[in-house]
Amino acid sequence: MNEFILTLKCADARGIVAGFAAGLLELDANIIANKQFTDHATNTFVMRTVFEDDLEDPSEVVDHLEARRQAFDAELRVRRVDDHPRVMILVSKYDHCLVDLLNRHHAGELAAEIPVVVSNHEDLRNIVEREGIEFRHLPVTPDTKIEADAALLAMIDEDDIDLVVLARYMQILSPAVCDVLRGRAINIHHSFLPGFKGARPYHQAWDRGVKLIGATAHYVTAELDEGPIITQDVTPVNHSDTPGSMVIAGRDIERLVLSKAVRAHVEERVFLIGHRTVVFS
Amino acid sequence: MNEFILTLKCADARGIVAGFAAGLLELDANIIANKQFTDHATNTFVMRTVFEDDLEDPSEVVDHLEARRQAFDAELRVRRVDDHPRVMILVSKYDHCLVDLLNRHHAGELAAEIPVVVSNHEDLRNIVEREGIEFRHLPVTPDTKIEADAALLAMIDEDDIDLVVLARYMQILSPAVCDVLRGRAINIHHSFLPGFKGARPYHQAWDRGVKLIGATAHYVTAELDEGPIITQDVTPVNHSDTPGSMVIAGRDIERLVLSKAVRAHVEERVFLIGHRTVVFS
Amino acid sequence: MNEFILTLKCADARGIVAGFAAGLLELDANIIANKQFTDHATNTFVMRTVFEDDLEDPSEVVDHLEARRQAFDAELRVRRVDDHPRVMILVSKYDHCLVDLLNRHHAGELAAEIPVVVSNHEDLRNIVEREGIEFRHLPVTPDTKIEADAALLAMIDEDDIDLVVLARYMQILSPAVCDVLRGRAINIHHSFLPGFKGARPYHQAWDRGVKLIGATAHYVTAELDEGPIITQDVTPVNHSDTPGSMVIAGRDIERLVLSKAVRAHVEERVFLIGHRTVVFS
Amino acid sequence: MNEFILTLKCADARGIVAGFAAGLLELDANIIANKQFTDHATNTFVMRTVFEDDLEDPSEVVDHLEARRQAFDAELRVRRVDDHPRVMILVSKYDHCLVDLLNRHHAGELAAEIPVVVSNHEDLRNIVEREGIEFRHLPVTPDTKIEADAALLAMIDEDDIDLVVLARYMQILSPAVCDVLRGRAINIHHSFLPGFKGARPYHQAWDRGVKLIGATAHYVTAELDEGPIITQDVTPVNHSDTPGSMVIAGRDIERLVLSKAVRAHVEERVFLIGHRTVVFS
Repeated sequence: MNEFILTLKCADARGIVAGFAAGLLELDANIIANKQFTDHATNTFVMRTVFEDDLEDPSEVVDHLEARRQAFDAELRVRRVDDHPRVMILVSKYDHCLVDLLNRHHAGELAAEIPVVVSNHEDLRNIVEREGIEFRHLPVTPDTKIEADAALLAMIDEDDIDLVVLARYMQILSPAVCDVLRGRAINIHHSFLPGFKGARPYHQAWDRGVKLIGATAHYVTAELDEGPIITQDVTPVNHSDTPGSMVIAGRDIERLVLSKAVRAHVEERVFLIGHRTVVFS
Repeated sequence: MNEFILTLKCADARGIVAGFAAGLLELDANIIANKQFTDHATNTFVMRTVFEDDLEDPSEVVDHLEARRQAFDAELRVRRVDDHPRVMILVSKYDHCLVDLLNRHHAGELAAEIPVVVSNHEDLRNIVEREGIEFRHLPVTPDTKIEADAALLAMIDEDDIDLVVLARYMQILSPAVCDVLRGRAINIHHSFLPGFKGARPYHQAWDRGVKLIGATAHYVTAELDEGPIITQDVTPVNHSDTPGSMVIAGRDIERLVLSKAVRAHVEERVFLIGHRTVVFS
Repeated sequence: MNEFILTLKCADARGIVAGFAAGLLELDANIIANKQFTDHATNTFVMRTVFEDDLEDPSEVVDHLEARRQAFDAELRVRRVDDHPRVMILVSKYDHCLVDLLNRHHAGELAAEIPVVVSNHEDLRNIVEREGIEFRHLPVTPDTKIEADAALLAMIDEDDIDLVVLARYMQILSPAVCDVLRGRAINIHHSFLPGFKGARPYHQAWDRGVKLIGATAHYVTAELDEGPIITQDVTPVNHSDTPGSMVIAGRDIERLVLSKAVRAHVEERVFLIGHRTVVFS
Repeated sequence: MNEFILTLKCADARGIVAGFAAGLLELDANIIANKQFTDHATNTFVMRTVFEDDLEDPSEVVDHLEARRQAFDAELRVRRVDDHPRVMILVSKYDHCLVDLLNRHHAGELAAEIPVVVSNHEDLRNIVEREGIEFRHLPVTPDTKIEADAALLAMIDEDDIDLVVLARYMQILSPAVCDVLRGRAINIHHSFLPGFKGARPYHQAWDRGVKLIGATAHYVTAELDEGPIITQDVTPVNHSDTPGSMVIAGRDIERLVLSKAVRAHVEERVFLIGHRTVVFS
């Protein structure tokens, strides 16, 4: 038996569950887990089903469900659970999020392949290569920004990348790149959102005297730090914290929040509905 | 249109979702929300469906689904959302959990009726009666314990009580009462479980030097403090806490944890599988 | 023996602790607890000392320490622990923060007197009066705003109020009132700060798709929602929350956050340093 | 100017603060931070003071304060902040706590030297050596237990180790070793305490249906899992968790809790009072 993940998104209507459940039954599928949600504000239905079947190829499932898919004008995806998404990580010089992702990958916590890490600096080469992962240096300067973005898109295409993770990548992706990567690039913002925007958020947080600092993982959009939120968390701080100690406390939250978002995405638990996300636990 | 909640529990098998979804479709039901879970350890399937229909009476739904229910040997319940469960609260002298439940009821946060509060002491009569709720004094002494338990069961029966909430009720229910109330009596234990058992848990916690204290809401069973856990939470404490300040910190956790459990139960979001619970969020 | 709280604030310098500790020793004071903090960014030293002494009157302590106080140009206050601050609560129609404060007062958790609750509406009169606390209706309209503010200040003066708590008071205090009440009026903002400003923050939060909602208690300043933060907390939400369910979740956070701030203030644990606070635990 | 940490512990009495503050003033010390606490249950006073001075050697401070130390029969320690404690880490095969400590050390978050990691297995050699840290394999079998314990004590002595960290070390230290290391060996227990004791706590937790799992860092004592607690934390779990997913969730809590405890210890923020700890934040 093979395990599959089916994800479905369409306008809500009567008969969706009955239809697709019947379709899977016809295929002798054994449903292991199923989550669904109707967003009443937009009348959108989303569903994630994990099932076992002795079929080999997800396309057999897709084909069998095609008439139903058309009837509901649904977005339908089926993949094998063991066909892991391919993740490219982008970094600059900060290593805490990268190291955490690599450690979780190594520990088998991330159901993903990480074929390559790309950076605009050489600093983290060793950390990557010692895990047996390819490290590529892609310098970015104001003058070479256009070429660098093109090179990045070419790599994503050639390496068949499913998800790009900006693990404290200190470059802004151009709107064109953001468009191409819509819903498949995740950034970690080192602040709670809405929150301190732009540079040095921990200094701003200290200056404002906040008692909690947070981090937000979100899909990348052309509007900086405004993309759909996937995960958020906070940690308490107090008067004895300095901007420096807030940075340290922030690292723990950043890596937890980013890795949760990446894990949710590669397990197909995130659905994008307009500017909001549904994240099944 | 009326809103209904359907809950279902049976051994997992192929075709459950397809069958019941088709059955609801035949009734022109509009599914608003659906959650399901398969507990693989016990091969148990549970489902909670909220739907709209222009039917009036839940028994019409039950009748229509009866053949399917039998086919899967399922426990099936359907009720109208506006047919609120009737809750009896048991208290002694501590008022913080009672006051919290009454406030939430007053604020419309609890989808429940509270026809009566029963206590072995008179102390909290005013707090109850000023909310327009009946207060009954049921004294319990070692000599009258058997009669008191019988009187309690009689009240539960006569008042058509769906759920009994022990809001820091300082009496132990007899095994016979626990049996009758299996799965419909909730207690708040003023400790994390597993944890400090028996008397004065905050003193024990202080003595042990713990850095967190917690509370646990669980279904009542004949084994004291061992019933199936519904909700738990903790709050940090430190060296400057005394048993007294831990008691105060504990109150906040106790009332939050108990009210979450009661809310989950009256919204039919809790399923009992052996000694464990499924709690849909 | 009587218990006293001494609070001190001055520019940091060598010899402060040695000086005041020696001064208290000369008075045969028995120090029960002492916390101090130096804010290096502003070179400000703050200290809170709880001590026992057989003196009756705090002014005897103040007089004895006066030379030292002058030497360090310090702000020094000494009060008896049992001389509770007098708190006026301002409310409109929402009752959850008010009820929580009254319950904690009733339970002995708030070391404060609450002689009066003032509201621009009549709705909450019963909740207040049944606790034996005076309720005053002070209507506010755009036309009567100036008179109402004057009346409020007069009440604060006549009733010898130490702290004003805006427990979801839906009126903005005029800059003049804010100035008079600097450092002794606490507001609960039903959002994380920085966060959604202005009206309907939970609708904004829902619209933004946040995964956490928060609340902030802060001292009132003329700049709306920009005052020095005392306490903050958050609670998780997810895609299945609506603006309405976020409001309910928000209530729990609001009352916890506000009551923590009020408790810290009346126990003299909050120090204002510019726009930031030191809050001793 | 050099920075020093002074820690003091003695029976509470009048004049301690005045005495030592005067003593530091005589040395022209500039106090940067000071925390103190009186444990009234045991009448124990503890204090941690960070100060700057143009002295070079902590023994000059100790000598100057010796008369006062004797007067209060105090335990007094003074060290330079930049004289980092030497930490030995013990591991077996699990790497998550080790990796976290090494990463934090690398990032400058741990004010400690880590000269050596000792393990009863070879598995983690590479992770250690690639950080430039010595890895020693010390096999332990029932037959060699006594020799292994002796070898361990010899290493601790020869390497001048200040703190031993059991980062999921799957061997029980003998009572004799525990005695020698009293107050300077920290273990991470992969459960909340009091909690599930002994083997496979996550399986026990799953079986009990808990809604939170936790971890506890504590000083090692001869009574397994009963040592003085330093730090604790929890993370929520639910019905959809398996023992396996609880293990993964547990790793995040374990490494956070252990690293917090180690950081507190090496920064001299932990005081042992009987079976309880004072941990200054």
